[in-house]
Amino acid sequence: MLGRLYEREDCSAARALEIAGERWSLLILRDAFFRGTTRFSDFQRSLGVAPNILAKRLEDFMDAGIMETHPSGSAGEHREYHLTEKGLDFKPVVLALSAWGDRWSAPDGPPVAFEHAACGGRVVQRLHCKKCGATPKLSQITARATKPRQPVSR
Amino acid sequence: MLGRLYEREDCSAARALEIAGERWSLLILRDAFFRGTTRFSDFQRSLGVAPNILAKRLEDFMDAGIMETHPSGSAGEHREYHLTEKGLDFKPVVLALSAWGDRWSAPDGPPVAFEHAACGGRVVQRLHCKKCGATPKLSQITARATKPRQPVSR
Repeated sequence: MLGRLYEREDCSAARALEIAGERWSLLILRDAFFRGTTRFSDFQRSLGVAPNILAKRLEDFMDAGIMETHPSGSAGEHREYHLTEKGLDFKPVVLALSAWGDRWSAPDGPPVAFEHAACGGRVVQRLHCKKCGATPKLSQITARATKPRQPVSR
Repeated sequence: MLGRLYEREDCSAARALEIAGERWSLLILRDAFFRGTTRFSDFQRSLGVAPNILAKRLEDFMDAGIMETHPSGSAGEHREYHLTEKGLDFKPVVLALSAWGDRWSAPDGPPVAFEHAACGGRVVQRLHCKKCGATPKLSQITARATKPRQPVSR
């Protein structure tokens, strides 16, 4: 049922969530983003994830265009999993999720600090209004549908 | 198995995903954020979600401190579901998910524009280095563990 009704919901956020809306998927992406992990065995060792689950998640990422494989090793005997541009572009979602978790769900303090490679400073996300240049408060952000909502076909 | 191994992964992003890592949850939050929806019947009408699923999701949000209920109506006969500060603070996650979906998964163009209530300008998220003030590129963001990683107890 979700499928059909969900079709009516033309929601970019929900579509993005389909990519990483599962904890292993997010942890795999995190390792790829921030640890530079590319090999099946390294993902497995780092995460302790069952091989069949890991294989399925990596396959899903390839199907979604988030990752691509390259052969490696002297005889091309290994496969490496590399993030595509579409995959790299998911990083801000991980930063936003982390910021929320750090604030509301990390009683022992943030486990990870995101830093600017060039200067070592802490990197945060800020809201920015492209018209007036302000940093709007969350309550000042409104959403405007850019096209008419589709009626439900029953 | 996920539970125990996952414990080892002290990951704020993953913890945040537990809150909204399901499509209906995200759509319910979106309606609360941007349509100001507060009533069970309004969520149901807007989303076409089955009542038992909606009831469970709202209950989960209350358990997680994302929403709280207020009585409403002249005799307090209705319940309204209101976002808490913890819930409102999840908005940037929806913005980040939407930005990714708009870029990579919206062939007909972004379905929704996020705007600054004060001036009508488009609101975007930007990376910001708190030390040097730069807007770092995604590839320039590194993650540093702030505490030693726990060994897996087997």
